Amino acid sequence: MPSAQQEVELDFDRRRRTGLDETIFTQGKSLSQLDSIFETARLRGASLLVTRLAPEKFAGLEPRWATSLDYCPISNTAFFGASTPLDTAHADVAIVAGGSSDAPVAREAERTLAFSGVPSHMLIDVGVAGLWRLTRHVETLRGFAVVIAVAGMDAALPTVLGGLIPGLIVAVPTSVGYGVATGGHTALNALLASCAPGLTVVNIDNGYGAACAAIRALRIRTCEPVYRPFSSCDSNQPEHSLVSI
Amino acid sequence: MPSAQQEVELDFDRRRRTGLDETIFTQGKSLSQLDSIFETARLRGASLLVTRLAPEKFAGLEPRWATSLDYCPISNTAFFGASTPLDTAHADVAIVAGGSSDAPVAREAERTLAFSGVPSHMLIDVGVAGLWRLTRHVETLRGFAVVIAVAGMDAALPTVLGGLIPGLIVAVPTSVGYGVATGGHTALNALLASCAPGLTVVNIDNGYGAACAAIRALRIRTCEPVYRPFSSCDSNQPEHSLVSI
Amino acid sequence: MPSAQQEVELDFDRRRRTGLDETIFTQGKSLSQLDSIFETARLRGASLLVTRLAPEKFAGLEPRWATSLDYCPISNTAFFGASTPLDTAHADVAIVAGGSSDAPVAREAERTLAFSGVPSHMLIDVGVAGLWRLTRHVETLRGFAVVIAVAGMDAALPTVLGGLIPGLIVAVPTSVGYGVATGGHTALNALLASCAPGLTVVNIDNGYGAACAAIRALRIRTCEPVYRPFSSCDSNQPEHSLVSI
Amino acid sequence: MPSAQQEVELDFDRRRRTGLDETIFTQGKSLSQLDSIFETARLRGASLLVTRLAPEKFAGLEPRWATSLDYCPISNTAFFGASTPLDTAHADVAIVAGGSSDAPVAREAERTLAFSGVPSHMLIDVGVAGLWRLTRHVETLRGFAVVIAVAGMDAALPTVLGGLIPGLIVAVPTSVGYGVATGGHTALNALLASCAPGLTVVNIDNGYGAACAAIRALRIRTCEPVYRPFSSCDSNQPEHSLVSI
Amino acid sequence: MPSAQQEVELDFDRRRRTGLDETIFTQGKSLSQLDSIFETARLRGASLLVTRLAPEKFAGLEPRWATSLDYCPISNTAFFGASTPLDTAHADVAIVAGGSSDAPVAREAERTLAFSGVPSHMLIDVGVAGLWRLTRHVETLRGFAVVIAVAGMDAALPTVLGGLIPGLIVAVPTSVGYGVATGGHTALNALLASCAPGLTVVNIDNGYGAACAAIRALRIRTCEPVYRPFSSCDSNQPEHSLVSI
Amino acid sequence: MPSAQQEVELDFDRRRRTGLDETIFTQGKSLSQLDSIFETARLRGASLLVTRLAPEKFAGLEPRWATSLDYCPISNTAFFGASTPLDTAHADVAIVAGGSSDAPVAREAERTLAFSGVPSHMLIDVGVAGLWRLTRHVETLRGFAVVIAVAGMDAALPTVLGGLIPGLIVAVPTSVGYGVATGGHTALNALLASCAPGLTVVNIDNGYGAACAAIRALRIRTCEPVYRPFSSCDSNQPEHSLVSI
Amino acid sequence: MPSAQQEVELDFDRRRRTGLDETIFTQGKSLSQLDSIFETARLRGASLLVTRLAPEKFAGLEPRWATSLDYCPISNTAFFGASTPLDTAHADVAIVAGGSSDAPVAREAERTLAFSGVPSHMLIDVGVAGLWRLTRHVETLRGFAVVIAVAGMDAALPTVLGGLIPGLIVAVPTSVGYGVATGGHTALNALLASCAPGLTVVNIDNGYGAACAAIRALRIRTCEPVYRPFSSCDSNQPEHSLVSI
Amino acid sequence: MPSAQQEVELDFDRRRRTGLDETIFTQGKSLSQLDSIFETARLRGASLLVTRLAPEKFAGLEPRWATSLDYCPISNTAFFGASTPLDTAHADVAIVAGGSSDAPVAREAERTLAFSGVPSHMLIDVGVAGLWRLTRHVETLRGFAVVIAVAGMDAALPTVLGGLIPGLIVAVPTSVGYGVATGGHTALNALLASCAPGLTVVNIDNGYGAACAAIRALRIRTCEPVYRPFSSCDSNQPEHSLVSI
Repeated sequence: MPSAQQEVELDFDRRRRTGLDETIFTQGKSLSQLDSIFETARLRGASLLVTRLAPEKFAGLEPRWATSLDYCPISNTAFFGASTPLDTAHADVAIVAGGSSDAPVAREAERTLAFSGVPSHMLIDVGVAGLWRLTRHVETLRGFAVVIAVAGMDAALPTVLGGLIPGLIVAVPTSVGYGVATGGHTALNALLASCAPGLTVVNIDNGYGAACAAIRALRIRTCEPVYRPFSSCDSNQPEHSLVSI
Repeated sequence: MPSAQQEVELDFDRRRRTGLDETIFTQGKSLSQLDSIFETARLRGASLLVTRLAPEKFAGLEPRWATSLDYCPISNTAFFGASTPLDTAHADVAIVAGGSSDAPVAREAERTLAFSGVPSHMLIDVGVAGLWRLTRHVETLRGFAVVIAVAGMDAALPTVLGGLIPGLIVAVPTSVGYGVATGGHTALNALLASCAPGLTVVNIDNGYGAACAAIRALRIRTCEPVYRPFSSCDSNQPEHSLVSI
Repeated sequence: MPSAQQEVELDFDRRRRTGLDETIFTQGKSLSQLDSIFETARLRGASLLVTRLAPEKFAGLEPRWATSLDYCPISNTAFFGASTPLDTAHADVAIVAGGSSDAPVAREAERTLAFSGVPSHMLIDVGVAGLWRLTRHVETLRGFAVVIAVAGMDAALPTVLGGLIPGLIVAVPTSVGYGVATGGHTALNALLASCAPGLTVVNIDNGYGAACAAIRALRIRTCEPVYRPFSSCDSNQPEHSLVSI
Repeated sequence: MPSAQQEVELDFDRRRRTGLDETIFTQGKSLSQLDSIFETARLRGASLLVTRLAPEKFAGLEPRWATSLDYCPISNTAFFGASTPLDTAHADVAIVAGGSSDAPVAREAERTLAFSGVPSHMLIDVGVAGLWRLTRHVETLRGFAVVIAVAGMDAALPTVLGGLIPGLIVAVPTSVGYGVATGGHTALNALLASCAPGLTVVNIDNGYGAACAAIRALRIRTCEPVYRPFSSCDSNQPEHSLVSI
Repeated sequence: MPSAQQEVELDFDRRRRTGLDETIFTQGKSLSQLDSIFETARLRGASLLVTRLAPEKFAGLEPRWATSLDYCPISNTAFFGASTPLDTAHADVAIVAGGSSDAPVAREAERTLAFSGVPSHMLIDVGVAGLWRLTRHVETLRGFAVVIAVAGMDAALPTVLGGLIPGLIVAVPTSVGYGVATGGHTALNALLASCAPGLTVVNIDNGYGAACAAIRALRIRTCEPVYRPFSSCDSNQPEHSLVSI
Repeated sequence: MPSAQQEVELDFDRRRRTGLDETIFTQGKSLSQLDSIFETARLRGASLLVTRLAPEKFAGLEPRWATSLDYCPISNTAFFGASTPLDTAHADVAIVAGGSSDAPVAREAERTLAFSGVPSHMLIDVGVAGLWRLTRHVETLRGFAVVIAVAGMDAALPTVLGGLIPGLIVAVPTSVGYGVATGGHTALNALLASCAPGLTVVNIDNGYGAACAAIRALRIRTCEPVYRPFSSCDSNQPEHSLVSI
Repeated sequence: MPSAQQEVELDFDRRRRTGLDETIFTQGKSLSQLDSIFETARLRGASLLVTRLAPEKFAGLEPRWATSLDYCPISNTAFFGASTPLDTAHADVAIVAGGSSDAPVAREAERTLAFSGVPSHMLIDVGVAGLWRLTRHVETLRGFAVVIAVAGMDAALPTVLGGLIPGLIVAVPTSVGYGVATGGHTALNALLASCAPGLTVVNIDNGYGAACAAIRALRIRTCEPVYRPFSSCDSNQPEHSLVSI
Repeated sequence: MPSAQQEVELDFDRRRRTGLDETIFTQGKSLSQLDSIFETARLRGASLLVTRLAPEKFAGLEPRWATSLDYCPISNTAFFGASTPLDTAHADVAIVAGGSSDAPVAREAERTLAFSGVPSHMLIDVGVAGLWRLTRHVETLRGFAVVIAVAGMDAALPTVLGGLIPGLIVAVPTSVGYGVATGGHTALNALLASCAPGLTVVNIDNGYGAACAAIRALRIRTCEPVYRPFSSCDSNQPEHSLVSI
């Protein structure tokens, strides 16, 4: 039988390149693969964010891993070790969710931000079917540079928000709902087709990805742009040999 | 026959609320509706960004409007009057496109940014089937706070980019392609399912929306967050009567 | 070659059964079929509502029909003769549309109501991306027993309305939009998945059907219910022979 | 771990705005969230309609809630407290279902109406494959102002009904069936594409929504329209500041 | 709680009208509904064909019903009582299936035919990936008036057969397969798009429907056509009042 | 440039094998390919049925072919030469269509039957929205051995018919309609999911295929079954070498 | 109850015709069918490759079969007996997988190759989000004649590879992922729409099929082409009678 | 207006890396972009394969380019200059197409092979509805190392072929057909779900891609594998800095 060790190749260089921490998406991974991953991280003294870790899989982990994880059963996330906070950590993110059934996705975003040291504030159950629940918070929401907006079913919440606030909105459709809403495709498409300009969208239930996008955006605050115009060299001649790629 | 005047209601307050200019999406609008829109804007001395203005429809406009528009037939955009540059205009955006067929969408983003006074730099035809075309620009691209990445077909370009740079990536799928790529749904789904964390996505061919998202994000650089924690008032009691909503 | 006369069978009994006038949906019908239909109606002295009559097809009609039609090129509808107003004609219907591109569909509803003598009031371009455009009319809209809400793209307008007013809402998705909004399926699904309870929905671009539903609903105002409980006869024994069906 | 209390925000103002009672859709909600919801309602002395409460979830509720609920395991609904009957309660609604497998959805509609005090009469298993089962009731059905028609598979029942009766028809597709009927999309689309004019449709299996639509429609009988024409004020100038929204 | 008795309405007149026996599709029916159905049939001395009766549901039936059923756990069918053989029973039907995983669907067809007294011959696992398995039976298959062809995945078997034999082919796609074959939609569409002319198709996994179609077709052999030309009466005047419908 | 002659390979043996005539589906074929096909048929003295021959393509044919074709512009069919009537030609087929827009598809079936010498009777515009239009013909329809039922939109007509008559029903969905009915997929799925047992279905707009199926079925009347039980030889040993396949 | 023996027909001639061994796809097969298959193979002394044999089904096999199988629970494959190595066995295949969750599919390919005696080398978890994980192996990969590339989610890995190496690439999309990636359709479509020319694709999760394609390709190395030009005989005259087909 | 020159970046290094020539896919490219591309190639003395060049676009090219292109209006391909034949050019490829409507796709494959100097043999109109048309060529087809199989509608041809020959089969679905076959998705899915093992598939209508895959496979014949085992270096430490990627 093949060794699980051969099947995992971690990317500890990711933060240097992208500002994001190495993260283990556990759905579809076997317990022996997770064992190899944690052992590799332990040996390097590295920290990991763990996502989609269902309670049943968490219960199946070797005790030495289970006890060393900071696990949240609502968001199905875990922290393996502690991460170094980002320089952008003093910037806050708002997380707004349409219904209480969207809470697990909103919490996944909150936990992902927390792992990178970014604080967030959360508003849940403010769907637009009761518009007052959202509008009484609009002035506050206008003060946030980045708002993660989580919504299922018709996902009208981020659209209404998009017409009222100036910040970056990262919208997360959720799979909450039945009939045509099953699986979240209606919410996703409604967000992509939004009449409010400038909404950005991530995959269904992808609270993790929304938080990563927020981290990328917050970096704008602190880093100095150093771009130079794209070089005018002969673009048809590869400068580097194939090996160097 | 009903009057077109009754059928348009412009939102000149939009920039104050969201930082984005009022924009006229002309697809599906009749020439008489466009006539009403331009007349309303003229009377108020307002500027407008005009999108999806196909050459045939541009040719059908009354001469007084056609001559006063700054029209681009590649991106199908026009400027009606000039906008006031945003405070964030000193920040640059990179626009990267996978193939030359994606140019109209990339140009729509470029023009939308230009209307708000935001400069941009463009790289076209750097799809990953010839990886060297992209990798030789990676160091430069790492210096940009926001990168708009435009790609059709399999849309692998933004994913590769997402693993190499730390900036905010707004990915735009395009409808370029045939067979399963027809209409851009494959590109869209590939971007949403990307293995590179933190990509954000907009609707197919939506260069305009990507630029709006970039403008929202660039605001992070200049504004001071003034958020206060969400109020602890009894959330079950609407403070305002229905009328005030 | 077969005769078009054999291919049409009008249902002049429809109003007696359902309260709705016989209507000719012209899409897919040949000019010779339309000729037969108008001739049949003329011979009986009957009135007809004509829908989906594109200007090109209208231009191809025999002059004797074209000149006797009350034709509207925005909604692509025509009146052949005049209908007897319904008893419910003193009740008003509001028609609300999200964008000016939705006007043809909203006008189809308006014309269908007008053919039955039902007055309507129309609000166009009040999409929720500029929420104030809608909310300043909410008090007025609360006074209507039936509101037809027309919206494309993300179709968030009827959902927001559904949380603010008590009347019957008949929502019409439109095919306005591009990318994932193409064809109106996103708008349709968002309406069906709406978080606002009690929205009813009709087919994409079906302004005609929405007006028919409004006419069915308005009948509630004037007719006296005469129902009797479902009979307790042996339900497993058909009382009537097959012939009588 | 986050508190479930922060994740629920009830809308007790809903009935005043829309005539519909606050309803808890329990699918996707955790037991601790339900606990918070019932506690909030208890403290305010409020009543709630509860839907999609599967027997397993009902069995997991705290005993104090389970014993105080009026629970129906066929429709998966529960009443928390009693609602005040609507003024329209003297008007009856007919509920017609194509097959006995559609009974849970039909019962959800019946229970929703009952919670608002609206009586209903039910006919089940009258699908058109045995047309006599439906036609022998047509005279009776013609006396109802509102008919909720529930059907899965090909959903031909509401179409046949729509050609025979004048009342408002709210059609509910169900997810009953296999192969192309799986999930109810065929039934949904057949209803939207119905050749019978004026059918309205709600989401798949949404008996609750159909009942809400019926309640909205029945209000037509009792309320006095007070609409005024839409105001002629300058529509481009928001009267209210952003805060008041 | 509502009574299951009110939720079932059997159609014992079906055979007289259509030549097919009343059949109970049990998927989605509750045990108490099945109890009512069997009791009704028992009181009338009627026979029933029962389909989609999964072993778990069969095990849940009251003993008095379970013991009186002729149950087949492969096809999930049961006979309640015995049916009177059709006059066409001396005509044989061939049933051909592509793979052994298609056996349950093929067996459902076989059992449905058997309930009406129609004999059938079965060939299983003769998919065209090993063409000789099919071609060596072609001469025999050419002798059958009706062939039911069952196939999943790419469903190429009925197409190949359609080019080699003259009989009526009723093709049944099955849900066997994975990836794009999941659920049987690929098989269904391949059959509908077949390049072999004159294939007829039924729903995915619908062995029952294929057998019913075969029974309808076999009737051609024995009955005398008695059609008269469609009447030349005025087609616009319903002869019968609404009540008689 | 390649020769069109190399690109066509006619199947003049088809009638002997399947009872159906060789038919040329012209959609997607070039004029030079059609030229080769007609020349080949002329040289062999063979007859051909031609389908999907749009008027524009018919107008582009070489005059010698155009003048020798019996062309019908409604059904887009043509006869090249005359076919020998089938032995089953004394049996009649009924063709029933829901709306007048379905006439081209119904006429394609009628012409296909006529090419094989099979008479048919047609009823058009008898959709179930006006049920009396269909039910007054039920007694007549019960006398036909085979009924081809053509319907678009919700395609409820064949289902209602299926509950009332005993003959073989070949249902043809049409692409008539808009919104969810566009392209005919809703009609197709509704037919496959029909609650009336024993309907068979062909591809969207496939009047030709329905007629071929009718021809296959009518053969039941005249031919003597000569089947022998499937041979009991060792099924795992191919009797014939690969070459003979 | 029917005999399972009648439901299986093995194709032991397959290797002679196609170079591939008879394989048993166990999904959907009953235990009694598997029992018949193994008994048939045992009697003939034949070897079989067994795929999709889930651990639960493996556990249900009769002990005499379970103990004689070489079973791998990661790939869900088993070897029944040993196969004769192919002549092409001295050629190696590379298998590259994007993530560790793709391992079962990659292992299915590896095991299928091993059953035919073809060695393979495997690289797992080299997805392009960390591009260095792939590029450091490019020189090695350029040496392989055939590369099987396994990827889920956005499936960008094979596209990047396709631009860097000259060998035959057989891409396998996997069902790994959530939201729009669920079921693997996004991965499949992205591969089919790849901007890298000459990728070939197999069904989702079809590691077995990819290995079979590799075996077909490797045969190129060893066999001598013996083609003769397609015969110039009269193509319209079948040389062989129907029986010989 | 932006310069088209900036929008094209050719990949003249492609053949060295992948063995495939640089190819210009012209769909979606403007005439000014094509002008830049040809000028760039002319200056470098490079050859180009041009695909999807519709006659109308070809007619719009500047005369100097049009006259120097070897253009084929059936396959919509053109050669700009001549390519150096591959070393594998002495190996032949068979191209088999199901119907004459598939000829343009088959010809695109033929032309792509010809541009690289690879000869091919073509069989068109050998679909399996007339099985003898295919089987009489089987012995010849068994001699080819690579067979490109082109088929629309149900695409059963490659499946039947896959059970009869040992060579590599690259299957190309085509968009030929109507109803469920529209666009080629049914053909595509049927090929992916094929019961014949080892078929590989490319995008719909992608004759070009199939030829590229054949070229990749033919290289197996001539090149010497030089693989070395994947290196055992610490896979978690990128050896090269980010710049070198």
